[in-house]
Amino acid sequence: MINSTFVAFEECRKGDRLPISTVIDNLVFDTNGLIPVVAQDHQSGEVLMLAWMNRVAIELTLTSGDMTYWSRSRSELWRKGDTSGHGQRLKTMRADCDGDTLLCDVEQIGAACHTGRKSCFYLQMDINSMSAAITESIPAI
Amino acid sequence: MINSTFVAFEECRKGDRLPISTVIDNLVFDTNGLIPVVAQDHQSGEVLMLAWMNRVAIELTLTSGDMTYWSRSRSELWRKGDTSGHGQRLKTMRADCDGDTLLCDVEQIGAACHTGRKSCFYLQMDINSMSAAITESIPAI
Repeated sequence: MINSTFVAFEECRKGDRLPISTVIDNLVFDTNGLIPVVAQDHQSGEVLMLAWMNRVAIELTLTSGDMTYWSRSRSELWRKGDTSGHGQRLKTMRADCDGDTLLCDVEQIGAACHTGRKSCFYLQMDINSMSAAITESIPAI
Repeated sequence: MINSTFVAFEECRKGDRLPISTVIDNLVFDTNGLIPVVAQDHQSGEVLMLAWMNRVAIELTLTSGDMTYWSRSRSELWRKGDTSGHGQRLKTMRADCDGDTLLCDVEQIGAACHTGRKSCFYLQMDINSMSAAITESIPAI
């Protein structure tokens, strides 16, 4: 899965700029037209969640500043927070070296996780005890 | 894509423990048997890369402490650093709320990116200028 366009970007130096359309046109979408997106809290650095975008979601996110994903369960565009009130404002969007993942720094309003926890990653493996531990309770309302 | 086992975990409270086999048995792998894995620097919090694991790679990573992925381009297990020397030691592995993503805090030896950059995410979108900027050069040897 060599992405020759992104290979050509590798030698670029800090501060070099490319047309954003060239980058988006050459992102690698999976067979469903989706790319994984990691959302990270722009202040704490905490990784909040991973969700998916299609091309339209990327463009909506960039132009509106509201993180907008593709819901695989509902098969529709999903502006984060529309039902929960827990939206995410985009701070920065970055692509990785081979153009098959996006990383977004976001300002998270409320909780990222549908359970009410700040982050979706609250189940930690512990090989020594052969168990997995819950690292955060659902906050009291 | 409701993961009923993980839904049952949602009400667990901080400190509750589950058998690790129950968690791993109920992770959601894609049609290729893979799950996305976000690797984050355990000290700086920087997101370094996203790669993929199958079940064997997860078990090898947990038991050896060496981050071991499935290479989609080579169709083989890939212990990070075996060719580059830039391995990753596992600090913590966490699953997300619906069991379809892993987040690993790692100790990164050298660069995570094959280009020599610390992180793979060095191409930042800028909608105002309709460009994408390189945020880091390849380090001088």
